[in-house]
Amino acid sequence: MKSILSSLLINLILLSFSVCFAQENRAIISPETEDCLGCHDELHPGLVQSWNDGRHAHVSPQQAIEKNELSRRISTEVIDEKLLNTVVGCYECHSLNTDKHADSFEHNGYTINIVVSPNDCAVCHKTEVDEYAENIMSQAYSILMDNDLYMDLKKTITGHYGMGEEGFTIIDNNLKTDNEACLHCHGTIITVDGTITKETDFGELTFPKLKGWPNQGVGRINPDGSKGSCTSCHTRHDFSIETARKPYTCAECHKGPDVPAYKVYTASKHGNIYSSMGDNFDFDAVPWKIGEDFTAPTCATCHASLIVDQNYTVIAERTHKFNDRLAWRIFGAPYAHPHPISADLSIIKNAAGLPLATELNSDPVKKFLIDENEQRIRNEKMQKICISCHSTIWVENHFARLDNTISETNTMTVVGTNMLTQAWDKGYAHGLPQKANIFDEGIERDWTALWLFYANSTRFASAMGGGGDYGVFANGRYQMSEMLIKMHDWMKLQDQMNKKKK
Amino acid sequence: MKSILSSLLINLILLSFSVCFAQENRAIISPETEDCLGCHDELHPGLVQSWNDGRHAHVSPQQAIEKNELSRRISTEVIDEKLLNTVVGCYECHSLNTDKHADSFEHNGYTINIVVSPNDCAVCHKTEVDEYAENIMSQAYSILMDNDLYMDLKKTITGHYGMGEEGFTIIDNNLKTDNEACLHCHGTIITVDGTITKETDFGELTFPKLKGWPNQGVGRINPDGSKGSCTSCHTRHDFSIETARKPYTCAECHKGPDVPAYKVYTASKHGNIYSSMGDNFDFDAVPWKIGEDFTAPTCATCHASLIVDQNYTVIAERTHKFNDRLAWRIFGAPYAHPHPISADLSIIKNAAGLPLATELNSDPVKKFLIDENEQRIRNEKMQKICISCHSTIWVENHFARLDNTISETNTMTVVGTNMLTQAWDKGYAHGLPQKANIFDEGIERDWTALWLFYANSTRFASAMGGGGDYGVFANGRYQMSEMLIKMHDWMKLQDQMNKKKK
Amino acid sequence: MKSILSSLLINLILLSFSVCFAQENRAIISPETEDCLGCHDELHPGLVQSWNDGRHAHVSPQQAIEKNELSRRISTEVIDEKLLNTVVGCYECHSLNTDKHADSFEHNGYTINIVVSPNDCAVCHKTEVDEYAENIMSQAYSILMDNDLYMDLKKTITGHYGMGEEGFTIIDNNLKTDNEACLHCHGTIITVDGTITKETDFGELTFPKLKGWPNQGVGRINPDGSKGSCTSCHTRHDFSIETARKPYTCAECHKGPDVPAYKVYTASKHGNIYSSMGDNFDFDAVPWKIGEDFTAPTCATCHASLIVDQNYTVIAERTHKFNDRLAWRIFGAPYAHPHPISADLSIIKNAAGLPLATELNSDPVKKFLIDENEQRIRNEKMQKICISCHSTIWVENHFARLDNTISETNTMTVVGTNMLTQAWDKGYAHGLPQKANIFDEGIERDWTALWLFYANSTRFASAMGGGGDYGVFANGRYQMSEMLIKMHDWMKLQDQMNKKKK
Repeated sequence: MKSILSSLLINLILLSFSVCFAQENRAIISPETEDCLGCHDELHPGLVQSWNDGRHAHVSPQQAIEKNELSRRISTEVIDEKLLNTVVGCYECHSLNTDKHADSFEHNGYTINIVVSPNDCAVCHKTEVDEYAENIMSQAYSILMDNDLYMDLKKTITGHYGMGEEGFTIIDNNLKTDNEACLHCHGTIITVDGTITKETDFGELTFPKLKGWPNQGVGRINPDGSKGSCTSCHTRHDFSIETARKPYTCAECHKGPDVPAYKVYTASKHGNIYSSMGDNFDFDAVPWKIGEDFTAPTCATCHASLIVDQNYTVIAERTHKFNDRLAWRIFGAPYAHPHPISADLSIIKNAAGLPLATELNSDPVKKFLIDENEQRIRNEKMQKICISCHSTIWVENHFARLDNTISETNTMTVVGTNMLTQAWDKGYAHGLPQKANIFDEGIERDWTALWLFYANSTRFASAMGGGGDYGVFANGRYQMSEMLIKMHDWMKLQDQMNKKKK
Repeated sequence: MKSILSSLLINLILLSFSVCFAQENRAIISPETEDCLGCHDELHPGLVQSWNDGRHAHVSPQQAIEKNELSRRISTEVIDEKLLNTVVGCYECHSLNTDKHADSFEHNGYTINIVVSPNDCAVCHKTEVDEYAENIMSQAYSILMDNDLYMDLKKTITGHYGMGEEGFTIIDNNLKTDNEACLHCHGTIITVDGTITKETDFGELTFPKLKGWPNQGVGRINPDGSKGSCTSCHTRHDFSIETARKPYTCAECHKGPDVPAYKVYTASKHGNIYSSMGDNFDFDAVPWKIGEDFTAPTCATCHASLIVDQNYTVIAERTHKFNDRLAWRIFGAPYAHPHPISADLSIIKNAAGLPLATELNSDPVKKFLIDENEQRIRNEKMQKICISCHSTIWVENHFARLDNTISETNTMTVVGTNMLTQAWDKGYAHGLPQKANIFDEGIERDWTALWLFYANSTRFASAMGGGGDYGVFANGRYQMSEMLIKMHDWMKLQDQMNKKKK
Repeated sequence: MKSILSSLLINLILLSFSVCFAQENRAIISPETEDCLGCHDELHPGLVQSWNDGRHAHVSPQQAIEKNELSRRISTEVIDEKLLNTVVGCYECHSLNTDKHADSFEHNGYTINIVVSPNDCAVCHKTEVDEYAENIMSQAYSILMDNDLYMDLKKTITGHYGMGEEGFTIIDNNLKTDNEACLHCHGTIITVDGTITKETDFGELTFPKLKGWPNQGVGRINPDGSKGSCTSCHTRHDFSIETARKPYTCAECHKGPDVPAYKVYTASKHGNIYSSMGDNFDFDAVPWKIGEDFTAPTCATCHASLIVDQNYTVIAERTHKFNDRLAWRIFGAPYAHPHPISADLSIIKNAAGLPLATELNSDPVKKFLIDENEQRIRNEKMQKICISCHSTIWVENHFARLDNTISETNTMTVVGTNMLTQAWDKGYAHGLPQKANIFDEGIERDWTALWLFYANSTRFASAMGGGGDYGVFANGRYQMSEMLIKMHDWMKLQDQMNKKKK
């Protein structure tokens, strides 16, 4: 039936399209962008049409600034006059700070760069970029690559495995593998490796040769030195707020099993309402009116968006520093703990000298972490959203359960850590005491799965009301306990074999 | 493009909204509910708007009764006059049987209770509540918590693990963990633990302090002693039949790996048609007309809904006793068997005295289970729906395959049970003969996964035409056989070690 | 809200329905099909309505032929006159080649057959059927069932397991199990096993008794000897191109963990755009206009559909030989390799005499596989689609990463194969040297999971930009490396035990 409706729908869309943007008086396209479109419309029709579907292609910064404060989608107060009255087209974004971009090049008479960075977006969206810089996601490259312990884990995952005389050897892998594995989400370093000249339909042209590209990881290191990629969530080239607000965007990196936020969401009552009734939600409205524009939260609702009630009273301020509303870092490596104070996690060391925010017995390393007062403040920010639909008792009990689960899952992980320590001490495996990689033997991997997959899953299920499956049988408590049982069985076997040896 | 359509769509919605309910003459809101809304509209805008989106907010019981029998959505014949002519608002549901509710309290001059129970819903929906009481889901709390063997399993999943002198110790966990783990789906016991007084925007107010709350598990024990939670499926506060009929509702608890009904559905032809073309289905129609309102079934179609053909001939009667159409209990623990006669499974014991509906060799304990004649009757009810779209041969062969799969998966489980029994007999593990927990050692967990995850997955894939993945490589026969191989390898290792000892 | 819109929407649908097909002058229904509908509309209302929703029920072959070449959905030039001017109804498809069909039978005065085969569809869609015959999917039955090595794997998955004196015994399983397990996707053999006479509402009727039915596997062996099932993707009975183009259709068989294409897609940027904005795509348009009809690809876009730009310049020709655009077979068993030349894989043997397209050291058996030049041609076909939305640098780097991942994952698999060979040589397990089944011991299953699940997952994630999760923690490199670690630990244990024995 749907296909039958298409001609009718297309007419409706064209009509509403012209109506909507007529109301906003579609701003003009700059001559430079017209020049770009001259060739690229033919070369990349999908890209250009996607841009054309978006707000950037129709609204000028001037028009965007004139909106009332709550409805405004741009945050910079003063914008350069030459950008002010044209739509935000190819040239407007790809030519902003070419002197700072290692990937700048001459292209048909224009100086442009390939990669648009947060610093470029900040020309209109300064507040968001500033906030994002305080979000640990912007430091995702360093969080992984500057942590010796995580590097040991990475080596066992993306490393070359060889068989030598004395068993396994693992050596670090090539950059291409890293770039498409861990750094797909964490972000690559994009560097320029000379130029390349190509024969094209429009004559011979020279381009910078990029390494680490393509990538849209959240902590990408850009050719202008900035960190992050706004297009991780604000998908090119329509940069639709609708896409950013839908859970599929977050799912690109948070599907699991290490951070199963999306899966947990789909099994929650919230996710059910979204899936069942979300077609009736308005994902484009700014501000986002609870009850009217949506009746169940998506990820963006709780973690990012500007939420108001029917009287335009603000329930939650927009933030791109998502930890603003997070008391805990429930992603434990290996333990959950109060959220770090600074986005720069490379400064964190525990008493044992390990780059971890907790001791091996799960005690938090307090000086790097927010205190209880700040935790309370952040919880209150989050709970103000919950209370828009739930009673105070409901919300308080929910958060009490989460606190309990954080404590229980940490305790389970401690039991595992103690067994592993024993295995190292008895020489059954080689780890910290032997200054060996702690992720390359069976019992070490069982311990890793214990916290990386199962304790984390269990906490996400708890935090998001994700229900029985993800809290129990689907990478939850069932598997968490199984890792302990497996480790225990293996220790018993080693004890047995060791006894005989004597 | 969608966002561009929103203003147009909102107008269409408002228009149709007024048109639709104008036709039904929106009933008046009671003064009591008006009073509730006076404060709560501001406090919980999302909750109130969700209610306002639903049928309860617009239709009175009187209007609902006047519909013709097939279209009627309420089943009680005689409804108290004071409820008859107002919409079903806050006060109408939260004040129905306050004398029976331990969670009743005085609130701004009204006696209300927090938790609305099936007994309250029965005031208008009696037949559905009565049927649901005969559905094993209503007994889900007792089915789990009153079964000693399942309690042993639960203990190993949600228990505290400690390391003592002689290895592991597992002690039972706290209620908060149980409430958000197993009981999230099975249902908590909601009790009242005194009161709490709070300073609110509307002055000082006192509320009952609830334990086991929030919860919407299917077998919830309510403060009025009733069992179940209609909102498990009829999601608050719009109670939309559309949501209940969509598969995401069932997915909240049936995603797997123990009961992977939803996952299997998404991989089936039925699920594909729903996902691809479901936007064209009418999920609100009562009765639900096959072919016209939908062209592929969702969970509700086969298990619950009132289905008619184009001439309004009834193909399947509405039922909230879902086992009405189920010949088998394919969820095996550890074996699949004919469906139990009574929803109260706590009466079931096998010859060995275990609380199971089968012997350890998979023989069914017949006296608690429906006979072949009843199985045939239930199959015919189900197959009448299948035959609306499929030939008789198609349907018969499908069900013959399911019978075969039930038998094959039981046989595979028996092989595992025999190996485990051998392990116990040889003292390699400690189980029934030793009166030990049978879920806390590696080989016991392999056996558990064999039936709990893999035999069950395989049967669900078979029952629902779920295809190759869930029947083979995705928690299916591949993994089922792997458990046997793993158990066998482990037994061989133990035999080897034992031989040496001698 | 949606439900409230339904009456309005239904009117819109009815309106547009009549408008759309009025434009096309709905062709007449043949008297034979009218006869069928006389009974079957009542018997199978869902089936008939589904057909009525589709194009076949409204358009005659003559009308279909008259369309311009790019818009045409049928490919046969000359169609029998008796079929030309009626809609494509029950009788038109089920009576086409009854003399060739073992499942033909007399039914109320007509000779018809139950199973409609590709040869029947070829009467109007000849090009597509011819192409599909060169697609390895059409040979899916033989690819599996005529490969001795795969049969050994199948035996361990669907076989009967028994416990004999000397441990396990595995014997082949019954046909019903095979038909619903592996052959659900690969396709069954449909044979006729006599007839069955039934008392029906319309008197006593006799039907052929089919074995292997129902089935819609891609390599089904039909009662007319043809191979394949068009309804695998072109779902009955509306045969909607919309469904075939949506990813849920491919997901029926490609969900994983062996071929996780669908899961990888949902975690990719492409999948996110489809999930978030796909409601605005036009899935019915022929040809399919990039940018206008869709702004992100589904499976069909890259592998099958006729894609044009805004000027109707062809970007990709329609093909039902999907490997036309595939340089590699990334589904490795056990290694990825250049795509086979012929769809008939039963001719392939490696130097060791095994039915594999690579040697055990991963070298490709070149004579059966396409050469580098053909790989380049196929890559270029695929990349022309990519370039519609991405820069040349982007696309080149993406494919360079895939090449790297193919090489890395093969290397990891070689390490595993070498360890397994060692285990066989040392007698720790029984495999090729012992002429034993190579899939029925623990270490053999670890090796199998290494390539079947984890190397394959990693390659699919790489090929489809599927991101960190499926390339790392979700059945990716983390698990790939874990299999090596597990195998290594087990070998160490065996060495240790062996040493003691001496």
